[in-house]
Amino acid sequence: MHSEPIRIFVHGGTFDKEYNELNGELFFKDTHVVEMLRLGRCRLEVAVETLLMIDSLLMTDADRQMILQKCAVARERHIVITHGTDSMPETAAVLGKSLKDKTIVLTGAMIPYTFGSSDGIFNLGTALAFVQTLPPGVYVAMNGKYFPWDSVRKNKELGVFEAPTTT
Amino acid sequence: MHSEPIRIFVHGGTFDKEYNELNGELFFKDTHVVEMLRLGRCRLEVAVETLLMIDSLLMTDADRQMILQKCAVARERHIVITHGTDSMPETAAVLGKSLKDKTIVLTGAMIPYTFGSSDGIFNLGTALAFVQTLPPGVYVAMNGKYFPWDSVRKNKELGVFEAPTTT
Amino acid sequence: MHSEPIRIFVHGGTFDKEYNELNGELFFKDTHVVEMLRLGRCRLEVAVETLLMIDSLLMTDADRQMILQKCAVARERHIVITHGTDSMPETAAVLGKSLKDKTIVLTGAMIPYTFGSSDGIFNLGTALAFVQTLPPGVYVAMNGKYFPWDSVRKNKELGVFEAPTTT
Amino acid sequence: MHSEPIRIFVHGGTFDKEYNELNGELFFKDTHVVEMLRLGRCRLEVAVETLLMIDSLLMTDADRQMILQKCAVARERHIVITHGTDSMPETAAVLGKSLKDKTIVLTGAMIPYTFGSSDGIFNLGTALAFVQTLPPGVYVAMNGKYFPWDSVRKNKELGVFEAPTTT
Repeated sequence: MHSEPIRIFVHGGTFDKEYNELNGELFFKDTHVVEMLRLGRCRLEVAVETLLMIDSLLMTDADRQMILQKCAVARERHIVITHGTDSMPETAAVLGKSLKDKTIVLTGAMIPYTFGSSDGIFNLGTALAFVQTLPPGVYVAMNGKYFPWDSVRKNKELGVFEAPTTT
Repeated sequence: MHSEPIRIFVHGGTFDKEYNELNGELFFKDTHVVEMLRLGRCRLEVAVETLLMIDSLLMTDADRQMILQKCAVARERHIVITHGTDSMPETAAVLGKSLKDKTIVLTGAMIPYTFGSSDGIFNLGTALAFVQTLPPGVYVAMNGKYFPWDSVRKNKELGVFEAPTTT
Repeated sequence: MHSEPIRIFVHGGTFDKEYNELNGELFFKDTHVVEMLRLGRCRLEVAVETLLMIDSLLMTDADRQMILQKCAVARERHIVITHGTDSMPETAAVLGKSLKDKTIVLTGAMIPYTFGSSDGIFNLGTALAFVQTLPPGVYVAMNGKYFPWDSVRKNKELGVFEAPTTT
Repeated sequence: MHSEPIRIFVHGGTFDKEYNELNGELFFKDTHVVEMLRLGRCRLEVAVETLLMIDSLLMTDADRQMILQKCAVARERHIVITHGTDSMPETAAVLGKSLKDKTIVLTGAMIPYTFGSSDGIFNLGTALAFVQTLPPGVYVAMNGKYFPWDSVRKNKELGVFEAPTTT
């Protein structure tokens, strides 16, 4: 039984998109992660901190350095990052090259939580479990699977994560 | 990255309760596990098999021996069992005393999936992640945590799972 | 365009049943009618008042006399009553025999609102529309239809409301 | 008790928008009206026909003439139209000036049905009730209210429908 504290860094992404009923566009307001943890009756010792609320396609190198810095200085050795799916492997690579002594799991969603049919709560469950049990390193948790940071890509045609095919 | 097949044995429990609109009672029809895997965009190699559809308070010793037998002969070395919460520790103990070479994770829900606010999909996510990463043994996955079979009880006043307090 | 105030009397029923995750039983806590009105972006002038929170099978003659009295003295001429479906026609009959100068519409649900797939919000929509447009009298609004109080029964085999067949 | 058949013409709008998980955009696939009627346990004699699946901001004069023509030739005297909210009053005006002998009710939603928190099912309930009870004419049903076609505007700041203020 794992009993160490876990930090969750929130970076927006589809996870947290909402529908603006005045103009019909999707936007970010607040994260739903705390509500999702409550819904899942989660009793882990978890601290949730919002770093960014953006679409991951808009994430810059400076944003990734900031995330890296936050992970490096966090006192927890187990970190979950909610992140847009489009550039999740890129962020994982930035973290993976530098951070060797913490278990860091990035996860996200294909469907916004507020749509009621989200994969987000399932993915959050897998990420929280993987972060307790995997050895130090940086991983992506999507589609029920985990991928080391140097062996994952998003297949944008299928909307799924997979290991790159080797040749 | 785990790539072995996983078996899910379904035993009913709150997970799969439905509302009978003709008499206002809760009942079992079919399992929702396959739909929940689809919702979670799960891409693991998973075989779902329904063994029982009952309230776990009604589970007998014979039922538990049947489950034990099914786990023993399953060709998969990674097994998730969806189970009512009330007697989940008892079933885990029956399995844990006999099965040493497979990773088996029991999980369940406090709220039926059909209620829309279920903890079931979160728990299913954690169970599928734990079953890929924990060493052989029998575990309960609830509240975001995992518990070895010989160190778990349901606190029925709070509706949460916890390690027994030692004296 | 109707612009008179509407009163909603809440009497529990399936509409407002919740799932008790500690014992697996259905129970009543607070009404969901206000939340449903908000969800429906309702902008009518509506006052919501909870009279009872019970299963309509347990409703007594005294309860019905109380409801009749509340309707009689309400200053609004347009009243919606949320009510369990099992004895809705009986309550409608008690009201219908006495109240001639107000438009009163009873409605309910076959599935609790908290199950996420409720017919309750649809029925509440129909009831609020009927109460604005029907002439004075007492009606049941279920299944998208309205029925005068003296021409409605619940078909308990099918779980639908219908006019009694005449012979 | 109304017993005449009702026709529902579907014109897309927010009602029927879905989330495309591959590109994060909203799009139209099929209408959800039939599913919503089933969810509402609607037992009215209703025929659903999809005319268009577009955002109402893109609706042209030719589209409105087509709708007018379809309403004129429909054999039903009671017609509900699901329509995007942005130009609903414009379409209502085109219909209202020409059609005098049928009861036609336009309705829509501020939030897509697939978001789980939709006002659509509430509005559909009100529209189906109003179409059974209002005298011939063309109306908009939103926010629990009905508005004659020549006395309605969408307040785009508040996202609600209202009667124009007279001076």
